[in-house]
Amino acid sequence: MLKPMQIGLIGFGTVGSGTYQLLKRNQHQIQRRLGRALHISMVADLDVAKVKAVVDADCKVVSDAQDIISNPDIDVVIELIGGYGFALEVVSKAIEAGKHVVTANKALLATHGETIFESARQQQCMVGFESSVAGGIPIIKVVREGLAANQIEWIAGIINGTTNFILTQMHEKSWTFAQALEQAQSLGYAEADPTFDIEGIDAAHKCSLLAAIAYGIPIPFSHAYVEGITQLQSKDMQFAAQLGYRIKLLGIAKRTDTGVEVRVHPCLISERSLIANVEGAMNAVMVHSDALGTSMYYGKGAGGEPTASAVIADLIDIARMASTDVANRIPHLAFQAQSIESPAILDIEQVTTCNYLRIAVADQSGVLASITSILAEHSISVDAMLQQPADSTSKQTELIILTHEAKEGVMNQAIAKIQTLSTVLMPVVRIRKEDFN
Amino acid sequence: MLKPMQIGLIGFGTVGSGTYQLLKRNQHQIQRRLGRALHISMVADLDVAKVKAVVDADCKVVSDAQDIISNPDIDVVIELIGGYGFALEVVSKAIEAGKHVVTANKALLATHGETIFESARQQQCMVGFESSVAGGIPIIKVVREGLAANQIEWIAGIINGTTNFILTQMHEKSWTFAQALEQAQSLGYAEADPTFDIEGIDAAHKCSLLAAIAYGIPIPFSHAYVEGITQLQSKDMQFAAQLGYRIKLLGIAKRTDTGVEVRVHPCLISERSLIANVEGAMNAVMVHSDALGTSMYYGKGAGGEPTASAVIADLIDIARMASTDVANRIPHLAFQAQSIESPAILDIEQVTTCNYLRIAVADQSGVLASITSILAEHSISVDAMLQQPADSTSKQTELIILTHEAKEGVMNQAIAKIQTLSTVLMPVVRIRKEDFN
Repeated sequence: MLKPMQIGLIGFGTVGSGTYQLLKRNQHQIQRRLGRALHISMVADLDVAKVKAVVDADCKVVSDAQDIISNPDIDVVIELIGGYGFALEVVSKAIEAGKHVVTANKALLATHGETIFESARQQQCMVGFESSVAGGIPIIKVVREGLAANQIEWIAGIINGTTNFILTQMHEKSWTFAQALEQAQSLGYAEADPTFDIEGIDAAHKCSLLAAIAYGIPIPFSHAYVEGITQLQSKDMQFAAQLGYRIKLLGIAKRTDTGVEVRVHPCLISERSLIANVEGAMNAVMVHSDALGTSMYYGKGAGGEPTASAVIADLIDIARMASTDVANRIPHLAFQAQSIESPAILDIEQVTTCNYLRIAVADQSGVLASITSILAEHSISVDAMLQQPADSTSKQTELIILTHEAKEGVMNQAIAKIQTLSTVLMPVVRIRKEDFN
Repeated sequence: MLKPMQIGLIGFGTVGSGTYQLLKRNQHQIQRRLGRALHISMVADLDVAKVKAVVDADCKVVSDAQDIISNPDIDVVIELIGGYGFALEVVSKAIEAGKHVVTANKALLATHGETIFESARQQQCMVGFESSVAGGIPIIKVVREGLAANQIEWIAGIINGTTNFILTQMHEKSWTFAQALEQAQSLGYAEADPTFDIEGIDAAHKCSLLAAIAYGIPIPFSHAYVEGITQLQSKDMQFAAQLGYRIKLLGIAKRTDTGVEVRVHPCLISERSLIANVEGAMNAVMVHSDALGTSMYYGKGAGGEPTASAVIADLIDIARMASTDVANRIPHLAFQAQSIESPAILDIEQVTTCNYLRIAVADQSGVLASITSILAEHSISVDAMLQQPADSTSKQTELIILTHEAKEGVMNQAIAKIQTLSTVLMPVVRIRKEDFN
């Protein structure tokens, strides 16, 4: 087995500490996939004491990022400082020192990406930036690899969770922009200085990166059209709703005969479109490409662990790709052959679901009581019920019951017993029900 | 530049010919991404004449797949025969001969995947099977790489387009299963023998592959619980709808404390869930994982070009991964540095969108006519209109107009002219509108 990949993490805020925790929690699973450990052996942060209180003893905490960059044992540097100034210096020096880099910093890449990627190319370093666009949704990988056979016609995304949260509040509660912003700030969805989010700049950073990888063009941030949501009135949302539309802040990259469009602005979209129903702080990116048609990618676009998910995916990719050892390629079935486990595959009798039952019954008193007491005997509780009006000729009716969760085996026993009731006239129809929460 | 990767394609049906056409059409873009050409230099199909009528002269057409497998110039074999018999022989022999393999054959992999992947591992060959699950949606890549930092809690997917089409028809038209199946067959969404689809077997093949890559377990097809849609009645769909649910055929893989669930069956899901609104032949896969939470991946799960999109993505991955040349890694910005192009980034004035206009006007006759004639002068046509009741005190009202597509510059001129009307009382509110069709 290859020795652990040594990682230096610079910046220990929400995403930094999320990355440390997630890597520690899932280290075993990640090794099963990668065939190699990922080890954050150094962290740099101005608040050394804060970091030391969290990390393990085998992780060296320093206040000077340069200590990480100049350490020859470090293979990969994670930059989670943010901003353009010191972050640019850190990333540039790390690449000069021959380190691979992972960064979530869209502002940095949208403005200095050309220089950074060119110097990485010369140094034969990898720069992973999956976490910089749409948080944990692997949209960079999807566009760059998954859809690589396609010509991308357009990309349209809800790629700023703060503004989508604000617009959702304005829509649902008819709040003004100012009210919704205040709510977003008090809940931690918007920063004290929300300018980059509400003016569309953050979305334009991300949209520019998507445009570059979709079309193979220089990162077009300085040419992007950017309009935020500060002027939106909730009355326009109500009028739009009357006409069948929702208003969302979209980042759009589009190929036309005359050039490429890169723009961020509020936009009416049909409420029947899946992306119109992306609510709150969630992100979603629609891609329309020549072979696949329209596809969509949905998930959490911000937050410590969702962003850490993408940061670590980049680390895993780098470890896989940096190795010329064929055994360290991506394993067919995602995990290393020697790490395949064999847990029990549960028999359906052991599976727990909610259930929908349709029961044709005689229209007479006491029927409902006898059925519900059988359910109660089996500790199956009822979530909802619907009784159809009785047919006056046949004197029978249909009872629909939604149950809470029950083990399939127990449910089968209850159904079998219900079936024996003389007032139950036909085989009970059962369809399982899942709550995806 | 590396020499073209030589590909032999076995089976020239819908997906086979789609793969050939798509690769030919997008060869230039693919080379810009990959830094290397992909060349289908041989095709094997029983109907040699049919293939010859379609492919270029530099592509050799044979009737015997063995001619491809034994050709030392061939780097990769694409198996698009389907079924378990001859396809297994072709894939096994190709791997024995040291070829990389790409296959869309979920039935083959779900039943013989263990043997195939083990022999590929020994031969140091890659086997790409992105196209075998959910067609063009890169769900294998997402779970195997994009979410590799996560523990997968559950996966729930609409992964059979035929049954989702049938269920959508039953829901929308209150048709019986038999009626909807007949419609699906006549439209080409269901095969003459639809057993694998309607009995849930195809979904179980795919679900088993997803379970294996999510959990690192042997492909659990023989232990999967499989229930199709043939017994579903549209009345249950109506009752479910009254209670706020839709019925979909789901493939579910779920980790529990006691083992792993792998099951395919009809399922009620809340109509507020995004996946409940996946209609017709579309596919969608929800993944719930510990770091990212719930994410969803949506797109076309079948058809020639959507499936070819995934087949060629696998070819590109193989070409990137088979090379130990660092310059042939995945380029940061998706395209090779020397292939970056610089098309015009369009000024917003050049961008074409639909528009929403809200115009505060005096409540007097002729106002609407003067506004619509300005739009007409600029060749901007009206899609929909909404007029609010006039305020009796202020004698003013608001007019909402949705326009069809117009160039931003022209729209700006029209708005400026509307603004000069004495009956227009406030600045015109304009929000762009996109039709994603």
